[in-house]
Amino acid sequence: MKEKLQLFITGGTFDKEYNYITGKLYFKNTHLDDMLERGRCTLDYQIKTLMMVDSLEMTDKDRAYILEECIASSANRILLTHGTDTMVKTAHYLAEHGLEGKTVVITGAMIPYAFGGSSDGFFNLGSTLAFCQVLPPGIYISMNGKYFDYDKVEKNYETGYFVSK
Amino acid sequence: MKEKLQLFITGGTFDKEYNYITGKLYFKNTHLDDMLERGRCTLDYQIKTLMMVDSLEMTDKDRAYILEECIASSANRILLTHGTDTMVKTAHYLAEHGLEGKTVVITGAMIPYAFGGSSDGFFNLGSTLAFCQVLPPGIYISMNGKYFDYDKVEKNYETGYFVSK
Amino acid sequence: MKEKLQLFITGGTFDKEYNYITGKLYFKNTHLDDMLERGRCTLDYQIKTLMMVDSLEMTDKDRAYILEECIASSANRILLTHGTDTMVKTAHYLAEHGLEGKTVVITGAMIPYAFGGSSDGFFNLGSTLAFCQVLPPGIYISMNGKYFDYDKVEKNYETGYFVSK
Amino acid sequence: MKEKLQLFITGGTFDKEYNYITGKLYFKNTHLDDMLERGRCTLDYQIKTLMMVDSLEMTDKDRAYILEECIASSANRILLTHGTDTMVKTAHYLAEHGLEGKTVVITGAMIPYAFGGSSDGFFNLGSTLAFCQVLPPGIYISMNGKYFDYDKVEKNYETGYFVSK
Repeated sequence: MKEKLQLFITGGTFDKEYNYITGKLYFKNTHLDDMLERGRCTLDYQIKTLMMVDSLEMTDKDRAYILEECIASSANRILLTHGTDTMVKTAHYLAEHGLEGKTVVITGAMIPYAFGGSSDGFFNLGSTLAFCQVLPPGIYISMNGKYFDYDKVEKNYETGYFVSK
Repeated sequence: MKEKLQLFITGGTFDKEYNYITGKLYFKNTHLDDMLERGRCTLDYQIKTLMMVDSLEMTDKDRAYILEECIASSANRILLTHGTDTMVKTAHYLAEHGLEGKTVVITGAMIPYAFGGSSDGFFNLGSTLAFCQVLPPGIYISMNGKYFDYDKVEKNYETGYFVSK
Repeated sequence: MKEKLQLFITGGTFDKEYNYITGKLYFKNTHLDDMLERGRCTLDYQIKTLMMVDSLEMTDKDRAYILEECIASSANRILLTHGTDTMVKTAHYLAEHGLEGKTVVITGAMIPYAFGGSSDGFFNLGSTLAFCQVLPPGIYISMNGKYFDYDKVEKNYETGYFVSK
Repeated sequence: MKEKLQLFITGGTFDKEYNYITGKLYFKNTHLDDMLERGRCTLDYQIKTLMMVDSLEMTDKDRAYILEECIASSANRILLTHGTDTMVKTAHYLAEHGLEGKTVVITGAMIPYAFGGSSDGFFNLGSTLAFCQVLPPGIYISMNGKYFDYDKVEKNYETGYFVSK
């Protein structure tokens, strides 16, 4: 794989932190750089933080910005971190607004990476980077070790798993 | 991906533990089941521990057994955990002894999964499961977020990174 | 130290977990047994979970129950886990309702133990068990590596530190 | 507690790291500062690294240096991190060479702090800081949540626990 990868960060549980003063979750900085170093990743990539939002609060204006950045990127292979609640919605938005010819794989986490030993985030990052390198152009969701075409998947909100539909 | 995955465990740093009595590293049980649960993995897979050895001590008899199990498995997609020191050697052994028609991806870790926050193992498991699902038949090494054809890679023993050759 | 220690659990951030379905914190089981095993603790102690509540929601009825249990315990040395927001209030309640002749040390955590590498809980448990063994009868708060007489301390709600007053 | 604490570091399992190139344990920097910050410790202390050695390799010249530093410190309350294999021997050395009038508490860990979730080090640091503040002058070992007079304890090398003798 000689192609450069573009990593776009939008927030989500993946990057949430615990505020010990308020007892609430919030966003500070992304953990992606730390995770890639810990993963000893030697891929050629560039990272850009587009926003740091809970995906339940992501607006269509936010999605328009993500779309714009995906189109503008010189890379044809894009990994997008995103809250799990609306990642499928964002995938649809990108597809319906004409994002074509690129491999875009969206992932997230059910438990914040900052919460240590119980988080699925590091595993999801590994699998998504791999899918990003080898899948043909298209828009995909990568969760639970699997990839799904964006229009054939849904989150089961009771179990937290992503399932084919 | 409807195909069943076969996961074979052979030991390596990936699964090493710290013995607090002797101060040495050793093998107890594999962490693969725990890791797959933490990764919330919903793939259809079966796991078998073939051996638990430091790959510097792996013999050709061990490799013959791995080969035999790869051939015997009903699965056409196989993930193999292995010590990083001789994973390339084992890949050559498998190729040179006629393993064909299956996607075999070998991975490991530079730091034991049991050592927590610094280990690359969980990331490597994620990326290797992904490569295993999508690469065409062949024998591959998966490390550092990348995959390599088995005969075009070597471990740099000074840095611990895997590089194309 | 030959005396048996009594450990009473009341909840607080110390024992909170992350619910990945709702994204909220909640209580499941206490982590105290795991922590004592990990700390390789060989003290003679008994543990009882009195309640699992956020200390902002603790009522005077709850405090009356804690008092009752402290008095009823056969142990003269008692460690109490408690949310940090009202641990000083509970200490006052115990003192003002006649708890005397026992060493009672109250501790908590600013970050849940379940959140791994960033939590202060394991450190606080260690220091509090130690204070509990050696301090004379009285009611104390143990946080930030220090102990305080219950009536000479307050939580600084802006920094999260406990300070003498 | 208004008195300043002196923390002396000598190495031991407490501060060992994993070298992923050689697969051996080694010393880099102490983790004590990180641990005190994570423990949100507000005690008045000063830290000095005297050496970073495996206690099986500690010589009497090393012990003479530790003694000298304990005497020279302006603090009357001293915490010493040390490998568990010879911490009792060092305690005897300090006592037999005239260290008097100070509270010296020696602790260590069975599992390196750097190995994350399984280490007892953070707990031991908490309990030892507490003992250090409240015990009368003397030389003590602090392990397993307990403190022992230095001449009434031994390490059970089969279980790794410290027991009264």
